[in-house]
Amino acid sequence: MIIVLKPRADAQVVNHVLERIAALGLTPHLSQGVSRTIIGVIGDESKLATLPLQAIEGVEQVVPILKPYKLASREFHPEGSAFEIKGVKIGGGGLAVIAGPCAIESEDLLVEIAGRVRAAGANILRGGAFKPRTSPYSFQGLGEEGLKILQAVGEQFQMPVVTEVMDPRQLEMVEQYADILQIGARNMQNFDLLKECGRTRIPVLLKRGMSATVKDLLMSAEYVLSEGNRQVILCERGIRTFEDSTRNTLDLSIVPNCQLQSHLPIIVDPSHGTGRPELIPAMARAAIAAGADGIHIEVHSCPERALSDGPQALVPDQFDRLMVEIRALADLMGKTITSQTGETAVCAPC
Amino acid sequence: MIIVLKPRADAQVVNHVLERIAALGLTPHLSQGVSRTIIGVIGDESKLATLPLQAIEGVEQVVPILKPYKLASREFHPEGSAFEIKGVKIGGGGLAVIAGPCAIESEDLLVEIAGRVRAAGANILRGGAFKPRTSPYSFQGLGEEGLKILQAVGEQFQMPVVTEVMDPRQLEMVEQYADILQIGARNMQNFDLLKECGRTRIPVLLKRGMSATVKDLLMSAEYVLSEGNRQVILCERGIRTFEDSTRNTLDLSIVPNCQLQSHLPIIVDPSHGTGRPELIPAMARAAIAAGADGIHIEVHSCPERALSDGPQALVPDQFDRLMVEIRALADLMGKTITSQTGETAVCAPC
Amino acid sequence: MIIVLKPRADAQVVNHVLERIAALGLTPHLSQGVSRTIIGVIGDESKLATLPLQAIEGVEQVVPILKPYKLASREFHPEGSAFEIKGVKIGGGGLAVIAGPCAIESEDLLVEIAGRVRAAGANILRGGAFKPRTSPYSFQGLGEEGLKILQAVGEQFQMPVVTEVMDPRQLEMVEQYADILQIGARNMQNFDLLKECGRTRIPVLLKRGMSATVKDLLMSAEYVLSEGNRQVILCERGIRTFEDSTRNTLDLSIVPNCQLQSHLPIIVDPSHGTGRPELIPAMARAAIAAGADGIHIEVHSCPERALSDGPQALVPDQFDRLMVEIRALADLMGKTITSQTGETAVCAPC
Amino acid sequence: MIIVLKPRADAQVVNHVLERIAALGLTPHLSQGVSRTIIGVIGDESKLATLPLQAIEGVEQVVPILKPYKLASREFHPEGSAFEIKGVKIGGGGLAVIAGPCAIESEDLLVEIAGRVRAAGANILRGGAFKPRTSPYSFQGLGEEGLKILQAVGEQFQMPVVTEVMDPRQLEMVEQYADILQIGARNMQNFDLLKECGRTRIPVLLKRGMSATVKDLLMSAEYVLSEGNRQVILCERGIRTFEDSTRNTLDLSIVPNCQLQSHLPIIVDPSHGTGRPELIPAMARAAIAAGADGIHIEVHSCPERALSDGPQALVPDQFDRLMVEIRALADLMGKTITSQTGETAVCAPC
Repeated sequence: MIIVLKPRADAQVVNHVLERIAALGLTPHLSQGVSRTIIGVIGDESKLATLPLQAIEGVEQVVPILKPYKLASREFHPEGSAFEIKGVKIGGGGLAVIAGPCAIESEDLLVEIAGRVRAAGANILRGGAFKPRTSPYSFQGLGEEGLKILQAVGEQFQMPVVTEVMDPRQLEMVEQYADILQIGARNMQNFDLLKECGRTRIPVLLKRGMSATVKDLLMSAEYVLSEGNRQVILCERGIRTFEDSTRNTLDLSIVPNCQLQSHLPIIVDPSHGTGRPELIPAMARAAIAAGADGIHIEVHSCPERALSDGPQALVPDQFDRLMVEIRALADLMGKTITSQTGETAVCAPC
Repeated sequence: MIIVLKPRADAQVVNHVLERIAALGLTPHLSQGVSRTIIGVIGDESKLATLPLQAIEGVEQVVPILKPYKLASREFHPEGSAFEIKGVKIGGGGLAVIAGPCAIESEDLLVEIAGRVRAAGANILRGGAFKPRTSPYSFQGLGEEGLKILQAVGEQFQMPVVTEVMDPRQLEMVEQYADILQIGARNMQNFDLLKECGRTRIPVLLKRGMSATVKDLLMSAEYVLSEGNRQVILCERGIRTFEDSTRNTLDLSIVPNCQLQSHLPIIVDPSHGTGRPELIPAMARAAIAAGADGIHIEVHSCPERALSDGPQALVPDQFDRLMVEIRALADLMGKTITSQTGETAVCAPC
Repeated sequence: MIIVLKPRADAQVVNHVLERIAALGLTPHLSQGVSRTIIGVIGDESKLATLPLQAIEGVEQVVPILKPYKLASREFHPEGSAFEIKGVKIGGGGLAVIAGPCAIESEDLLVEIAGRVRAAGANILRGGAFKPRTSPYSFQGLGEEGLKILQAVGEQFQMPVVTEVMDPRQLEMVEQYADILQIGARNMQNFDLLKECGRTRIPVLLKRGMSATVKDLLMSAEYVLSEGNRQVILCERGIRTFEDSTRNTLDLSIVPNCQLQSHLPIIVDPSHGTGRPELIPAMARAAIAAGADGIHIEVHSCPERALSDGPQALVPDQFDRLMVEIRALADLMGKTITSQTGETAVCAPC
Repeated sequence: MIIVLKPRADAQVVNHVLERIAALGLTPHLSQGVSRTIIGVIGDESKLATLPLQAIEGVEQVVPILKPYKLASREFHPEGSAFEIKGVKIGGGGLAVIAGPCAIESEDLLVEIAGRVRAAGANILRGGAFKPRTSPYSFQGLGEEGLKILQAVGEQFQMPVVTEVMDPRQLEMVEQYADILQIGARNMQNFDLLKECGRTRIPVLLKRGMSATVKDLLMSAEYVLSEGNRQVILCERGIRTFEDSTRNTLDLSIVPNCQLQSHLPIIVDPSHGTGRPELIPAMARAAIAAGADGIHIEVHSCPERALSDGPQALVPDQFDRLMVEIRALADLMGKTITSQTGETAVCAPC
């Protein structure tokens, strides 16, 4: 940590800062120049992080050197983490292809969609039973009935299932049905929910908040990890910017950026990231080429009748075509798409 | 609602859209030109909002006309809402001056701070017992012990108290101590929490999310209102932008903007909005001049020892000086600062 | 400047950095800890700024300490700058009230508008002769004919005039007519234009770019100042954010922020800052309360027939009402609105 | 165009709007409902675009239906445009690989870099002779001397050259040396510069402004096109967002987005888009997979001694490795990298 003092900070200020640092058992390094004094502290920055040194009269700027996350950092775990969930490998060369409808609407519909995405090569089934809708008047999800349908259809097609949990009180129920717990973008800093998910041993798919920096995302992962659950999968799903022709702005640079700073796998959701079906295939391909450990795509057999987010869903035929491209790219990138039944998707000769 | 079809949309598409609309008992108006066809629907837009018409092949754009919020809208309640909380009037010419430390740290400290802010003219006391901290390793608040302290100190100084609730499970406890429930920026779209707060009859201070539009904020208010709790106070606290010399960018235009669209009172938090004590007084004054129904200021007697957000707190002396300016501005704007004991802050002769 | 090395940077890297610094005649301070090495350099940072130290293998982060601007900084000129332009004082307690149409459309119209805004208390007349329009098919301004009209009407009403210059080639012409040169938001980093304006001795009104940080704005001011023109007036006019109910997001915190860091006066343009006439009065008041040295308001007698930006103009009656409020606030803030003829606007008894 | 009236707009307002529309020779379609009246106008929207209908008292919202750009739109030119510049094909399956240093520093250095990037597979050489630097104290480029070096080195390695033009007055000189004129992000809305480049017949590489929407970018292209120069290449180079761990946020969704709306080729600059060499390869790959018509990469043999933007340059060895990946991806995407001498880069067997 580096403390930069204001110009003309006097000896009293300097001494006060030095004392505060020394009181923590740390050794400050003083550098005094004509126009500025800076104080460097090297050591256990976490001790210092608890001190609001910036509030000291005479301090201009405090520059942290060490990252505020530990368990999520690559320094803590130099090898990239890879998780195997019912035979599906995510990270370490394993590509997650998560597909399904935004919301679970009925068993028939989910069977229809799951059948199609499984055949096309998806290895994880998604579907929401609790839906975070902007409007209280919109469809809020089927609740436990939806979870039962999801679990049954997942078993039928031998696909692990992922579903969103919005409220710590839902967790006891959702745990019984889900193979992966999704924490949505709007709840990325719902710290009580993060802690509760951290207390389970079910893998967590943590979506980036709409205005979360990379550091914020990794700090939220840290909340889950620090409770003992080491299986966190990060997910980019677009951020809010001034651009108004897409629902969000998909920030693919977070893929290599996170991979440098963290050992956690990271996947990409181009459905929410663009909100426009005609842009999804290009961005799904780009995600794989950027090195993502998976993609997350919403598919619906009849988007114009979907109860949630229909306008951004691919239809199964579009998903089929996309998966041909994804498999070819996965091959090129040295990634494999494994499934619960053991087979590996292979690239059609290209 | 207006449905714009893609260029060269054929009769089949047009008929399909017309049928979907008619099936809801609504009357479409067709306008066909050389380059585009548009279909207008005037009537109960909420019926249409459930249809993802944008997902229909051949539809280019769907433009909603009516606002998606109802109970929060000024059309629903043309008079501005005003709430009286233990004698403190917010809205309708009553100015809320909410002050106190970020977190409740101890009874002694809270007594000291409350005494100072009350003397300076604040009429509501704030303090956090449950703290949403970016890092799991930071101080997370005193919990129920903090709530007890807050309630006792509020009673001692005859100030209603506001404190944050982060988790629906905390509500039963917090209800016993708080006069106003704060929903923090990070939880603005924690819909289960919004619903639960809506089921109480305790006024809710709803902070704008860091990437929430005005519409998003009013939709979150709608969640609370639609559960029957009609006392929602909106709060601007800065949004995330590229500007990196302030913690957030305080968007004061939301004050007149919300007042035009909604009947709900709106206050401003320049502490989080700037994150820099030296900018807080100017922005507090600007908030009042913009017509805000109150301000929310963090005050700490020793910011450099604060357990949370010290660097952005005013010290009591700074708050004293600010309140002289605020009272003069309140006078000019025709606002009064009422208190629990009935007295009204008066402007020193200016 | 502080150079933070990557974890495990070896002696070779350390020595390489030390040598690069020493070669400039500067003295580095080395602080070595277990997890990190940092090197502080105190002295003439401008020498170092030319070195891309961040590109050195083994360097993690370079943290500049000194501000990159000099002539614009308050350290260079501790007193706030104040300019007197034909009797109108800007800065140092003098408030600029700049008003007029977006574009000069005809002499009759400008006379009508100027008469009204002058009577209401504006002290500077604005009008565009060269218009930066998003579309090449929109009205591009009257050019020199417009400048002649502007000058004549300014003289008739004894108001100094400000007009935009978009192209260095226009400067020779514009100089003959304008009392203040406006550099528009889109040209804030048109460095050749900045330099040319810096070579004149005509005051420059520099508008903040739509995605410019405070530092960027001050660096652009530095371009003008470094060419010898010391009369730069900064202007906030809104930045681009995700909020879509206003044309831009007016960032009023830049007013106290710039005043702390720079000696240059700063004014606010709520017309472009909001794009909505119904929000302009509240934001103009807020700007004055925040401490701005002036406001910039577009006024048109018939907005629905304006050739440019009509939808955001106030009509003269609205401007009259606003000026009553502005005068009262100016009084409260201890500011005066001086005019070319020497009279000072006085607050009606309030 | 659709005009939505305010609730309770009376007959007078309705008639006034209808008259304004009829006066332009257009036919309005009136739809009156209980809560709202809307007026649709189908026809030559450009006539209406000149009317600020939004400024009419009683009008709530004006929704344009047609795109404001014409020559840049895909409707105008359904086939994608492809340009051949000295044998290098851009668009239509031809991939531009533009590489070189940020600034031209000396002939020796440019020869060294050009030799390396040419050997690795780049087909266009870049280098700045006029540099838009944030600080007036930074290296501003070699000017004409730099242009001469660039032209000579381009001829030596048989590569067409691209260089930035910042000021209309430089154009006469730059035209003599450059094969492609670059308009930088900061000048994307320097409309006089756009017009002047539009009057040449030299292809223009138009970089997206830091806060430009897709529509803004296409409108700037329209400025060039409308002057008769039909060779415009768009370039994404990152936008400004709250994310502070990258220099900008690279918005790759603009690639398919522009390709749907416009016929113009679009390339991607991951160097400015990320500002971090370790992220450039992943984002260059992603750009190709997203369907971009080219990439633009800064390469420098000794970034730590570069006079401009060193910290974001790749060294030649890194560029070599990247090009192996780019060629494999180009193959997969069905794109070819042609060069001035006629050879086509081939993918090593993969």
